[in-house]
Amino acid sequence: MLTIKDIARLSGVSVSTVSRVLNDRPDVSEESRRRVRAVIEDQHYIPNNTARDLVRIRSEAIGLVVRGVQNPFYTDIIHAIERALDTAGYTMVMRQIGFSDDEIEAGAVMQREKRLRGIIFLGGRSDYTPDELARVTVPFVFCSYTNSYGTLDPKRYSSVSICDEGAAFDAVSKLVESGHTRVAALIADADDSSISQLRYQGYCRALREHGIPLRDELVFSTDDSFAIEDAYRAMGAALSRTGDFTALFAIADDMAIGAMRALREHGRSVPEDCSVIAIDGIAVSEYIHPMLTTLCQPKTELGAKSVELLLDVIEGRGGHEQVTLPTVFRAGASVRRLNAL
Amino acid sequence: MLTIKDIARLSGVSVSTVSRVLNDRPDVSEESRRRVRAVIEDQHYIPNNTARDLVRIRSEAIGLVVRGVQNPFYTDIIHAIERALDTAGYTMVMRQIGFSDDEIEAGAVMQREKRLRGIIFLGGRSDYTPDELARVTVPFVFCSYTNSYGTLDPKRYSSVSICDEGAAFDAVSKLVESGHTRVAALIADADDSSISQLRYQGYCRALREHGIPLRDELVFSTDDSFAIEDAYRAMGAALSRTGDFTALFAIADDMAIGAMRALREHGRSVPEDCSVIAIDGIAVSEYIHPMLTTLCQPKTELGAKSVELLLDVIEGRGGHEQVTLPTVFRAGASVRRLNAL
Repeated sequence: MLTIKDIARLSGVSVSTVSRVLNDRPDVSEESRRRVRAVIEDQHYIPNNTARDLVRIRSEAIGLVVRGVQNPFYTDIIHAIERALDTAGYTMVMRQIGFSDDEIEAGAVMQREKRLRGIIFLGGRSDYTPDELARVTVPFVFCSYTNSYGTLDPKRYSSVSICDEGAAFDAVSKLVESGHTRVAALIADADDSSISQLRYQGYCRALREHGIPLRDELVFSTDDSFAIEDAYRAMGAALSRTGDFTALFAIADDMAIGAMRALREHGRSVPEDCSVIAIDGIAVSEYIHPMLTTLCQPKTELGAKSVELLLDVIEGRGGHEQVTLPTVFRAGASVRRLNAL
Repeated sequence: MLTIKDIARLSGVSVSTVSRVLNDRPDVSEESRRRVRAVIEDQHYIPNNTARDLVRIRSEAIGLVVRGVQNPFYTDIIHAIERALDTAGYTMVMRQIGFSDDEIEAGAVMQREKRLRGIIFLGGRSDYTPDELARVTVPFVFCSYTNSYGTLDPKRYSSVSICDEGAAFDAVSKLVESGHTRVAALIADADDSSISQLRYQGYCRALREHGIPLRDELVFSTDDSFAIEDAYRAMGAALSRTGDFTALFAIADDMAIGAMRALREHGRSVPEDCSVIAIDGIAVSEYIHPMLTTLCQPKTELGAKSVELLLDVIEGRGGHEQVTLPTVFRAGASVRRLNAL
């Protein structure tokens, strides 16, 4: 087997230069790097530190599984995650999957194929069981959701999320406090064991605590989608059945924007004929007309905190934690105060 | 040095199981995989095929450098790229950089750190010189832009883009054909050697070919940003200087949405008091009020074709190519036909 000295001789550089190339350090000229690598590849040289290199390569990668592509809410979060991982010396390997795909399956496959040190799940179900997660053997964190309906051992996972039920409760309470009693809801699914269900439950509790009966005919569902086009379609279909509401709670900004187009097309102005409130606070919702009134998620903090918790576990600084971050109310122009109750 | 037989003995599994673990094959139980890996790590075992493994790991990674984070236009493109790479058996390693960061620098660093086989640049300047790109020694493709103002050898790079100058020409011509002669432009920069300059030139040519003098006071610039908040601010500042236009060409959908808020806040309705047209076709622009009239880029095709061209070069099926894809006009409700010319 060749020694590092042989490599230096064959490539015409010093031993220390070979060492720097093997350790992938920046302080080597491109030309030296090229020559050393050519010799290594020609001679099938296996450096002594290869095992360590393999571990290092492996150890650098953190998987990011993004469920529900085209979700504008995720853009800032992904950027915050990428930046935090980069600062800590890790590589983010991202996989985007469809809204109805299985994020655990995707994570397990990635873990095997990409030799991950940890996984960040951005979007997923809130009812995982220990069995389902058994296939993921590296540390993981749920970003923007948590195990609300599940049975995971809190010592075995981290999560960073808002309180979805509470945010929905707050949003609907704003509508009621503005004089609205006929409040519709646009949701993805009432029992998807996910944030849609949590926010739907917050809606139900707000009505209940304000003494307003829940009317099922005012709960509109996209049939398990958060996509703007599905929100638009579901709202259009609902409006051809009923118009008996003065306000709408949409579980997501993007869905609210889709719904507002349907309202306009059915001759209802926002907020004159129908108030609209949502949750998320995506950038564009501040620029549309009327500006959307919404509860903003702390997007950058969601991403940065997820990385912090995951690396604490990976690097042995701490155990798993579930963190809840607050939302911030943004008063737009999409909610109208009713004069008479 | 340990042999594969020693590993099998120490971990209590068969030689073929060890081999399967070393080759990262799926047909191994998690328990066996765990035991073999534990022995390998304990013993610092260096498998014979490590050199090959290193090459294999390296060969799988394609870098994606995304310049200009928070650009909603990129979401669908990134998804298309990720899907195409995944189908072809590659890993996408993404790095998002700020709008004013250096994408070539980011690509060169990634190439070294992540051992890339190729790089996809999503967003960047259009005036690269061969010297600037010399640091990137793997094949690369520019996605959504090309080397319009640069001096790269066409045999040395691939690109997939629309004709930005032509799309802007078409957009402004639509306004003129609708009777508008006082047409303002909202751009990022008139000479950034990037798509902003190309689209600005298309605006100038459309005015020229329709016999309309260019008026510099109707060209509003965000000072080199494509961000919605900067478009909003630039448009607001412009409107406090001049209102002498009946139509606005914004070089991007997102910028148009920002501008429309500024127009409203200055008491000008779209399209009654000012028509607006843009380029890009991001999802949300179809749902806002009024629906934005725009020239849609073929986002999925931009991503898929970029991967196809890059892998053709990497896998030796073909040389570099520069491909131009057509835009599709979407008639929204943001352009009004003037009655009298």
